[in-house]
Amino acid sequence: MKKNRVRYYTDPVHGIISFPWELLQLVIDHPYLQRLRRITQCGLSHFVFPGANHTRFHHTLGVAHIAWRVIQVMQEKGFSISKDEAEATCLAALLHDIGHGPYSHALEQKIIPFHHEEISLAIAQRMNQELSGALDMAISILKKEHPKKFLSQLIASQLDVDRLDYLTRDSFYTGIEEGRVGIDRLIRTFSVHENKLVTEEKAIQTVEKFLVARHHMYWQVYIHKAVLSIQQMLIMLVERIKTNCRNQNDVIMPSSLRSLITNAENSSVQNLLDSYLALDDVTIMQVIKDNLGHPDYILSYLCNCLLDRKIFGLEWISIEKNDYTFAQKLRNINLSLGDQNDEILFLIRTGTEKSTSYVLDNEIEILTNHGDIIPLSEASHVFFKEESLSKSFICYPRHKR
Amino acid sequence: MKKNRVRYYTDPVHGIISFPWELLQLVIDHPYLQRLRRITQCGLSHFVFPGANHTRFHHTLGVAHIAWRVIQVMQEKGFSISKDEAEATCLAALLHDIGHGPYSHALEQKIIPFHHEEISLAIAQRMNQELSGALDMAISILKKEHPKKFLSQLIASQLDVDRLDYLTRDSFYTGIEEGRVGIDRLIRTFSVHENKLVTEEKAIQTVEKFLVARHHMYWQVYIHKAVLSIQQMLIMLVERIKTNCRNQNDVIMPSSLRSLITNAENSSVQNLLDSYLALDDVTIMQVIKDNLGHPDYILSYLCNCLLDRKIFGLEWISIEKNDYTFAQKLRNINLSLGDQNDEILFLIRTGTEKSTSYVLDNEIEILTNHGDIIPLSEASHVFFKEESLSKSFICYPRHKR
Amino acid sequence: MKKNRVRYYTDPVHGIISFPWELLQLVIDHPYLQRLRRITQCGLSHFVFPGANHTRFHHTLGVAHIAWRVIQVMQEKGFSISKDEAEATCLAALLHDIGHGPYSHALEQKIIPFHHEEISLAIAQRMNQELSGALDMAISILKKEHPKKFLSQLIASQLDVDRLDYLTRDSFYTGIEEGRVGIDRLIRTFSVHENKLVTEEKAIQTVEKFLVARHHMYWQVYIHKAVLSIQQMLIMLVERIKTNCRNQNDVIMPSSLRSLITNAENSSVQNLLDSYLALDDVTIMQVIKDNLGHPDYILSYLCNCLLDRKIFGLEWISIEKNDYTFAQKLRNINLSLGDQNDEILFLIRTGTEKSTSYVLDNEIEILTNHGDIIPLSEASHVFFKEESLSKSFICYPRHKR
Amino acid sequence: MKKNRVRYYTDPVHGIISFPWELLQLVIDHPYLQRLRRITQCGLSHFVFPGANHTRFHHTLGVAHIAWRVIQVMQEKGFSISKDEAEATCLAALLHDIGHGPYSHALEQKIIPFHHEEISLAIAQRMNQELSGALDMAISILKKEHPKKFLSQLIASQLDVDRLDYLTRDSFYTGIEEGRVGIDRLIRTFSVHENKLVTEEKAIQTVEKFLVARHHMYWQVYIHKAVLSIQQMLIMLVERIKTNCRNQNDVIMPSSLRSLITNAENSSVQNLLDSYLALDDVTIMQVIKDNLGHPDYILSYLCNCLLDRKIFGLEWISIEKNDYTFAQKLRNINLSLGDQNDEILFLIRTGTEKSTSYVLDNEIEILTNHGDIIPLSEASHVFFKEESLSKSFICYPRHKR
Repeated sequence: MKKNRVRYYTDPVHGIISFPWELLQLVIDHPYLQRLRRITQCGLSHFVFPGANHTRFHHTLGVAHIAWRVIQVMQEKGFSISKDEAEATCLAALLHDIGHGPYSHALEQKIIPFHHEEISLAIAQRMNQELSGALDMAISILKKEHPKKFLSQLIASQLDVDRLDYLTRDSFYTGIEEGRVGIDRLIRTFSVHENKLVTEEKAIQTVEKFLVARHHMYWQVYIHKAVLSIQQMLIMLVERIKTNCRNQNDVIMPSSLRSLITNAENSSVQNLLDSYLALDDVTIMQVIKDNLGHPDYILSYLCNCLLDRKIFGLEWISIEKNDYTFAQKLRNINLSLGDQNDEILFLIRTGTEKSTSYVLDNEIEILTNHGDIIPLSEASHVFFKEESLSKSFICYPRHKR
Repeated sequence: MKKNRVRYYTDPVHGIISFPWELLQLVIDHPYLQRLRRITQCGLSHFVFPGANHTRFHHTLGVAHIAWRVIQVMQEKGFSISKDEAEATCLAALLHDIGHGPYSHALEQKIIPFHHEEISLAIAQRMNQELSGALDMAISILKKEHPKKFLSQLIASQLDVDRLDYLTRDSFYTGIEEGRVGIDRLIRTFSVHENKLVTEEKAIQTVEKFLVARHHMYWQVYIHKAVLSIQQMLIMLVERIKTNCRNQNDVIMPSSLRSLITNAENSSVQNLLDSYLALDDVTIMQVIKDNLGHPDYILSYLCNCLLDRKIFGLEWISIEKNDYTFAQKLRNINLSLGDQNDEILFLIRTGTEKSTSYVLDNEIEILTNHGDIIPLSEASHVFFKEESLSKSFICYPRHKR
Repeated sequence: MKKNRVRYYTDPVHGIISFPWELLQLVIDHPYLQRLRRITQCGLSHFVFPGANHTRFHHTLGVAHIAWRVIQVMQEKGFSISKDEAEATCLAALLHDIGHGPYSHALEQKIIPFHHEEISLAIAQRMNQELSGALDMAISILKKEHPKKFLSQLIASQLDVDRLDYLTRDSFYTGIEEGRVGIDRLIRTFSVHENKLVTEEKAIQTVEKFLVARHHMYWQVYIHKAVLSIQQMLIMLVERIKTNCRNQNDVIMPSSLRSLITNAENSSVQNLLDSYLALDDVTIMQVIKDNLGHPDYILSYLCNCLLDRKIFGLEWISIEKNDYTFAQKLRNINLSLGDQNDEILFLIRTGTEKSTSYVLDNEIEILTNHGDIIPLSEASHVFFKEESLSKSFICYPRHKR
Repeated sequence: MKKNRVRYYTDPVHGIISFPWELLQLVIDHPYLQRLRRITQCGLSHFVFPGANHTRFHHTLGVAHIAWRVIQVMQEKGFSISKDEAEATCLAALLHDIGHGPYSHALEQKIIPFHHEEISLAIAQRMNQELSGALDMAISILKKEHPKKFLSQLIASQLDVDRLDYLTRDSFYTGIEEGRVGIDRLIRTFSVHENKLVTEEKAIQTVEKFLVARHHMYWQVYIHKAVLSIQQMLIMLVERIKTNCRNQNDVIMPSSLRSLITNAENSSVQNLLDSYLALDDVTIMQVIKDNLGHPDYILSYLCNCLLDRKIFGLEWISIEKNDYTFAQKLRNINLSLGDQNDEILFLIRTGTEKSTSYVLDNEIEILTNHGDIIPLSEASHVFFKEESLSKSFICYPRHKR
């Protein structure tokens, strides 16, 4: 009676999730993956969207679930995907984000100077050693080295299971309906052509909608002014901790974080991994709570603002007028905060954000009803034209201490 | 152009939430309420339901939102509720859970020996001082001292806005559909009769469904075996920390928690409040992470299990057979863990849980189409008969160290 | 490139529906099944629930879809169901309601004296002749003669795919949320034990919820007072047409309906089939529109009321007080309508309705975690106790001519 | 106890709908409005989307509901809208589609040569006479003659309550998710500026999404190939009935339709109204069923195809290649149908369809955070650029008789 042993995950987004492989269960239960339960998918965006407390762990399950559904549809359509390849693809889905650190993208490359994908690979490889090579094929898919190229594209391309999950999930938890994607239809219309992942023509509107949804989630959530501002505050926090450390001012923090801050610059990913795997959202919030009264008043100001959700102001500025606006802003901030100390300048930042748009050098490919392949930019006369938009901002404190 | 200043909260559960009072905004933004952002609504239930990371803060907003909608409907129906009373009721809704501590109910009365409602009142009163008495009426509603008794019943009774929100919200985030409640219909059918909150007869099935939903959420979520087990683990953790403290074994923990553990027994709520307000989920997770290598191997075992989601086993046992089962279980656990140390007994617990059922001494009252009032138990011939069910369990470790 | 030929049905209830068999497509496209597009699932209930215009055709697709999903899950669990058996079960699902007539249950046995299941079987058999026996196995499943008894139970039992679809669908289209059922969980927890369909213990609450949902849909939709009243009006209409025919008063109507009304009493199902297959909701509405000015003022009154949604009054009465209430009611109706003609009595009806409750002689069976089978009434201590409730009513006109 | 008298409509799309005015109830219950229950919102689109059986009546309720919600929000924002104006606007919403005929747009101007809006106005005026002028203000809003221009814009403009309802409703019932619109946010961000309806800047993405949704509903539903084909078939049916009438060949049909077909050309709307108000979907389906065996084999062929859902083929053709394609197609059709009769040419049609896009001469206006008004085309750099797309098609029979 093994039948009952299958684990079911109840997901409000996708319904019931389950996988037919014991190895997947082992990987899900591994402390490295469980760590993702303590890392929110959208950082501190829940300051703006109170429902957005969902985790990287949950996203990861969702990505593997969609991958598994696509593979089943492909198999039904007659494409050859072996049982091992199916399992490896789902494993790759589980591992693709395992390298994320505290608050996901918000602090990416700020604590240690590596991109999360590089770290994911390092962690996956360490795990693979523990598991005596059971993850070999999954890793080859992650590294785009597997001969069935379309499996790698399923995990990472302009129309992949990662994006399908995060748009749907972030939309669900933020309550921003514009992010919804017609997942069911997309899942059923993936196909393979000359070893490449393609989408059947009948889903062309659903693909267009997917691109629009992505665009809208950027402007409404990912680069929402308050969300960007919180992200800047977190970055300032980390920088200020580093500055204090360099200046021999003690900051209360867990040893893992201290070790990374001290050694990150000159180390390889591998050497940092032990400390890195101890990091999560709790680490940062602990630092915030423990240094509310730190003698560096800039640090303590940041900690207090982050704890009590006193979000810095952020305004879009046009780059041309930058200097003037900046100076004027500065003056106003000083006046309103009544703070004559030059240190306050540390808390005023400018920067540029852009929505990552559809790129033309590696297009989504459409399989027409006649069996031809055409790039999306040709198939769709309407929406793919979206240009990459970038906007500059100034971010500054607005609460008195 | 003040119009645009109204704050909108985007809630995936209720849609857009907003209130027409500045004082509410002030209270929502207060650090005491913001603290609830760091306290999950369902403790560590997300170990079982990966979507259940929603917070007390979000629930609190939802409760106030439903309260506001009910009041608007009542006003439309012609019942006299002044602007101030409306505001105070929404404030009471915001404050009703402000006293919750880490992991909400899971550790209630375990860290300090007070019920969360008593603490809520103490915090509300302190806030009221800060606000020069602006919360007077809200507090009178919380204390059931306001002459319009039905306002207090709206906040706390067998069919109140608290339950409407938590069933709906917990159902939404766990993905357990059985917990859904016909909120829209209930909101529109609340009425007042002789100063008491009543429900119009036409919503009788929706009330029945509400009780069934509550029943099902108990059995599927709130006293799910793994959820109970995690709760026992958290309780053991706190007890073990206390034991170590008593025995002069240092445990790494924030000073606020240390202060509470040392002083809670003989203090008043008021004296503990400063330390208590520094507690949240982060506090406990920080202790877990900081004591993974604690010399007390029972404590370190608990920390490791809680960090890596190694959930203890839990089985329902019938009370009569208790002794025998207990002894046998004990023997098996010892064998499987290979642990001869008597200390292991600390980790084996029995207990009893019951679903809180509908009680007959303070019934939901139904306003019939003819204008009479009858208790629900009479109006509904079907579902109110649910008996209070209690079940005993044994909980025990099952992962080797 | 046959891949693209699979037909997708976009169902707002279940998502995308498709089947892997050409024969199913042939049956779906057959005029007998297409006829169900012109028969509403819930009769004229859309007079009360304006969204409830969904059809028997749509329901039929949904039943086959759920059957197919259950079979796939069972196959994954290792139960032996051949490709032919799977196809035949889905065909049986498609055919199970093919015998429904105008407004589904509302006029059942009123136009011809046969139950819809008997007619379904006759139509299926005629279709089977056309298809040279391709439906043999499907018919054996419908007739409960197939050796795999559980396949027949899947189509018709106390927890079958028919009920799963109609509760979910009727709930969706009426907007009565109480009828929602946890279909996904139920689909995944069906199992087979000694050739019987059983449900795994872990879905016990979902089964309870299913029974509660059914109960609530009865009271809120299926025997809603206005819905019952409309049903009585339709029955009166058919009776009045018959009376006029017997009295040689011409009624304008299609020849198929005339032929049935004249010949139904003494004929076999087979002989009536040709005429019967020409009936649908349009037939009745056509009669209503064509006889608005009929010389029999009772008939014309009914036609006008049904066209313009002038719903008769309906009140629950207690049987004991029946005579008195009836007489009094009668008097009031006469007064209010100002109608002295005795014919008006034709329009006043009493009757009894009962909610079909869970029956104990053919129980839903639960497969416990230990592999035992116990009846639901034992597994669930709470909800199965629902008694069959019956209620008497009086129905009467309330609009002046 | 009048409180309970308020009528609630349970709408699966918007939740509970109710209005505080008796006059609205009177209008809803009027036979002219009840007629819309027998007219499907999307014609025979349910041949393609089996869930799309929703009616004009239901849509009309929804439009009035959204109008009422917008007005309430505007009143809360401080804009002056009197009780009478609120009621009149909701009445205008109820009346705006009252002139629709069988299958809504599918046969518009085919039976009588008037646009549905002109007919709506004529019906509203007749109703107004019955109601002694109670609809005066509502009619002035419909005719855009009311001084508060923004009320007329709310009912009919590029971002009006009509579109908000039909996109949402058609999306819901077809199951095409791309059509969903963020109604809640739009309702809360309507504003008024210099007597014109404007939208607050914070909803800019939701407006963009609304335009994209409209675009997608065109391509996925409204001009779906099979939907267009069915529409062509209905048009051919009506034309063929007319031809037969002209040729003195009797066609079985209700007298109202016969009267319109005979007299429509030279009459005013007013003179045709009595007959027109007797038309609905049933009328056409009745003609289809009654003429299945008509001696004109083209007419009988159309009737049979429409009854049994034998949809004609439809292909997009490029206009340049039109002649050649047409001739070739013709040849193939003749060969495949084996039909040498020239009459078959009647059944082959070409035509052009275009998606109605955003137009620049009457723009949606955006109220910026600084209080300025800018047209959407300026506020949104991305999506408004959609060009009007038109496509040519050829439509032809493909089922043998």
